[in-house]
Amino acid sequence: MATVSLISDDAASPEVLAVFDDIRAVRGTDFINNFWRALAHDPALLKATWERLKVVMGPGDLDPLVKEMIYIAVSTANGCSYCVHSHTAAAKAKGMSDAQHGELAAVIGMAMQTNGLVTALQVKVDEVFKA
Amino acid sequence: MATVSLISDDAASPEVLAVFDDIRAVRGTDFINNFWRALAHDPALLKATWERLKVVMGPGDLDPLVKEMIYIAVSTANGCSYCVHSHTAAAKAKGMSDAQHGELAAVIGMAMQTNGLVTALQVKVDEVFKA
Amino acid sequence: MATVSLISDDAASPEVLAVFDDIRAVRGTDFINNFWRALAHDPALLKATWERLKVVMGPGDLDPLVKEMIYIAVSTANGCSYCVHSHTAAAKAKGMSDAQHGELAAVIGMAMQTNGLVTALQVKVDEVFKA
Amino acid sequence: MATVSLISDDAASPEVLAVFDDIRAVRGTDFINNFWRALAHDPALLKATWERLKVVMGPGDLDPLVKEMIYIAVSTANGCSYCVHSHTAAAKAKGMSDAQHGELAAVIGMAMQTNGLVTALQVKVDEVFKA
Amino acid sequence: MATVSLISDDAASPEVLAVFDDIRAVRGTDFINNFWRALAHDPALLKATWERLKVVMGPGDLDPLVKEMIYIAVSTANGCSYCVHSHTAAAKAKGMSDAQHGELAAVIGMAMQTNGLVTALQVKVDEVFKA
Amino acid sequence: MATVSLISDDAASPEVLAVFDDIRAVRGTDFINNFWRALAHDPALLKATWERLKVVMGPGDLDPLVKEMIYIAVSTANGCSYCVHSHTAAAKAKGMSDAQHGELAAVIGMAMQTNGLVTALQVKVDEVFKA
Repeated sequence: MATVSLISDDAASPEVLAVFDDIRAVRGTDFINNFWRALAHDPALLKATWERLKVVMGPGDLDPLVKEMIYIAVSTANGCSYCVHSHTAAAKAKGMSDAQHGELAAVIGMAMQTNGLVTALQVKVDEVFKA
Repeated sequence: MATVSLISDDAASPEVLAVFDDIRAVRGTDFINNFWRALAHDPALLKATWERLKVVMGPGDLDPLVKEMIYIAVSTANGCSYCVHSHTAAAKAKGMSDAQHGELAAVIGMAMQTNGLVTALQVKVDEVFKA
Repeated sequence: MATVSLISDDAASPEVLAVFDDIRAVRGTDFINNFWRALAHDPALLKATWERLKVVMGPGDLDPLVKEMIYIAVSTANGCSYCVHSHTAAAKAKGMSDAQHGELAAVIGMAMQTNGLVTALQVKVDEVFKA
Repeated sequence: MATVSLISDDAASPEVLAVFDDIRAVRGTDFINNFWRALAHDPALLKATWERLKVVMGPGDLDPLVKEMIYIAVSTANGCSYCVHSHTAAAKAKGMSDAQHGELAAVIGMAMQTNGLVTALQVKVDEVFKA
Repeated sequence: MATVSLISDDAASPEVLAVFDDIRAVRGTDFINNFWRALAHDPALLKATWERLKVVMGPGDLDPLVKEMIYIAVSTANGCSYCVHSHTAAAKAKGMSDAQHGELAAVIGMAMQTNGLVTALQVKVDEVFKA
Repeated sequence: MATVSLISDDAASPEVLAVFDDIRAVRGTDFINNFWRALAHDPALLKATWERLKVVMGPGDLDPLVKEMIYIAVSTANGCSYCVHSHTAAAKAKGMSDAQHGELAAVIGMAMQTNGLVTALQVKVDEVFKA
């Protein structure tokens, strides 16, 4: 698979290496996953994506583990295999238990099911639900 | 909109009314939203959907509010307008703050973005992410 | 809604009118629905779409009503409100009963649910399922 | 692939084995496909999913083969590779001919195409299509 | 519709107004569309989204009109009605002709169709296509 | 993968070979990719798909390279791995530079992100955007 090659550290430009270094520092690991190595063909895109991800997935009003589960939910509905894999690993690293993983899957499945039922029947939004 | 009519209490069969009654009891409100009134054309489907939803979205290893946010995330990725509206209302009722709502949207947007980047570049799953 | 206007019979070119006439003849009705009037801005696209639709949805190895239900299933998963409405009307015109409609929705919901579960858990295809 | 391991019969709890036994009995085969072995990490989810699937996909107002084709249609639109594979195998086992398979693909393709055209042009639902 | 209210200029904080002012300056119009007024509930999200959009959709290696058409294509496949409307307006403002609009729709429809055919048949990627 | 086998030249009927010959002539290569070999199980579907693709992706009001990028955009949003691979190869063959490829990915990612934000917040279409 892949429509671009992966940029190794040796092949990386200083601008790319600076982003890789920050990823390593923030995550406390030397490992750089394929996503960032693929994006590295476009250093500006790499940098902008990482800078934004760091903020959005960092500390805030939602728990970091909750954010990972939301990420898995979106990635599942979009059928992004890579994203489901990488964010499930991230969620486990942040403490997601097997029971929580099962429950996450159950909620995703339930949502998918009622999404289908609502759309198949074209149910009109109740007035009370509108802001 | 809608490809089926909505079943009023007066038009509901005893089997449907029993489900409506349980929805009212569990939720502590007399209001029955359009989704259930549309499903009521098929009493067995109505009952099975409600019985399962009650379990999946009820108390468990994940916080009920977190479940609602996961539901919103899936519904957004699937483009289900009704579902986004109804579960945003449910999330607010369960205490979602404006700041959490904004952060939820930001995480969904971030996930959508990287789903697109990963899929556009067909990035291969890192071995370390596989169970 | 709409990002293009709808072409009335009066505003239609001879090429467009010829397609409209064929739609009327094949369907046995004078009514031309909005989809064709929107496509009519591009007569070649209109003609190619209608000619192909006529073949694909016509008599063949699958029952015409089954084809409409497959169409509804795809349109639901894609969240195409217009398509769900128009093909539900077509399915009803071809004899879909209320019970069949409910069962169609149930199957769509079930498929959506297991699509979500499979993708959330990234289940690997069994060897026996490969052609 | 997979974000969870597959539960073998030896590793299965009595509750899981009971579901596996029922799957075997209903399907008349000893084979348990990966989907169920992945779900088995969460026995309650496994049981609820199987119990519901058994009802929805069983005898009713729609032909079981038609239900499998609807399942394939939804799974295709959602891009669920596993689901397309498993339900195509099921459809073939229930008698889907090569000609019907080709026609199913053609209808799915046609629906996808007009879903795209309608959404690109944002065509408004005709009043006559509303229930 | 909407699960949040729209922030008027009068209700906007200085941080929000600064973004609105930049949108107005870059676009050369006083009009602020609903998307930005909805995002304004979360000033940081508003600012980050606008700052990134300005760069991505601005001058670069692809023509701005081409970028708008790619945007419409993605938004169509995702079923985002708002996005199709707003970016079709933007594309027209950047010179998209009616003929180009029709051709864009035709390409989107063609891609949707073959996406469906490929996924329904689960066609394996040719080795020659891999980077 | 694949739910159908691939039809080799030796196994192809005269009708299928005629389409293969035309693909070879139009593309100026002897190579027939898997998509067409999979479709060849249904000669009428193969022929109709190729005839239409040839017209839609051929010379017109949009540049052929632009059409390929639109195709990639749709295929990405639909999660069609095969289609992303094959049309990225086609785009590169038509001159897409690495910089354009990166920018294409950035636009797709941006569109996905705002699709998610708009849908999460259910933003209402501005009147000025309606045709």
